[in-house]
Amino acid sequence: MPKKIACLITSMFEDSEYSEPAKAFQEAGHEVVTIEKETGKTVQGKQGEVSVKIDKSVDEVSPEDFDALFLPGGFSPDILRADERFVNFSKAFMDAKKPVFAICHGPQLLITAKTLDGRHVTGYKSIRVDLENAGASFSDEEVVVCGNQLVTSRDPNDIPAFTRESLKLLQ
Amino acid sequence: MPKKIACLITSMFEDSEYSEPAKAFQEAGHEVVTIEKETGKTVQGKQGEVSVKIDKSVDEVSPEDFDALFLPGGFSPDILRADERFVNFSKAFMDAKKPVFAICHGPQLLITAKTLDGRHVTGYKSIRVDLENAGASFSDEEVVVCGNQLVTSRDPNDIPAFTRESLKLLQ
Repeated sequence: MPKKIACLITSMFEDSEYSEPAKAFQEAGHEVVTIEKETGKTVQGKQGEVSVKIDKSVDEVSPEDFDALFLPGGFSPDILRADERFVNFSKAFMDAKKPVFAICHGPQLLITAKTLDGRHVTGYKSIRVDLENAGASFSDEEVVVCGNQLVTSRDPNDIPAFTRESLKLLQ
Repeated sequence: MPKKIACLITSMFEDSEYSEPAKAFQEAGHEVVTIEKETGKTVQGKQGEVSVKIDKSVDEVSPEDFDALFLPGGFSPDILRADERFVNFSKAFMDAKKPVFAICHGPQLLITAKTLDGRHVTGYKSIRVDLENAGASFSDEEVVVCGNQLVTSRDPNDIPAFTRESLKLLQ
């Protein structure tokens, strides 16, 4: 059954960490809705390779409208977490135990949402201490699946494993 | 008496958070030595306004050669803290109780160095929860001076207060 996936994204995202999982999700029949501050805006990846048109403003959507949350990395998550609307939106998926897929710096939104205490995760090496300080246990592995709900990966090299495990939780 | 200040910096730094304090330090007679991986490289600010030539590779210098540490913000600190040489270099100043000046995302290096437990700080709003999880108490003020040693500020608007308090510790 097709699922509706919310993707929080802004400029400076890591290009392939959005484009490759999004393509795989769509090819499996799921819908990816890109969400930022402004509907219709185009945001740019930090490598200059991928542009993404924003489908919905965060003010127009509700977490209840979606089945899962996808958080690509790069500097996008740190920019977004300075705005509590994106933090609260992320928190709602963790609280509802809906699937959450976060790669690289993606878990930064989950740290600021205070949702990682006692969870098992991985993430980009620069945020390892932040994840541990947030109460998570960190494994240096290509993908970690916690509680049949939270999928995390380290960096673009892990995209195949990240996508594979995320797709399993969408079945 | 002129002091020698180490500045850890790489591309994607917040332009004015380097250029304005560095200018003030130099005008007061102090020396600012820019340090990255590669001597002679030019690094670029994220606003595209400021370029900085790297004076020394981190492999060529020792914390003992310097009187103080300056950490400008932007995404530079997060990039640098993925490399333990910059983390260890930062830690040495905290351990030696030498003056440390960190603005915006600058304190991310101090989090990864595990040096903020019990300290009083401020920083860019996106890293507030990371700072608190690291054991620091956070104040939403233009500048916080902790233990006559550690000066932190939030963002470019705070540069005058940041520079003023940093200069006091260099006297």
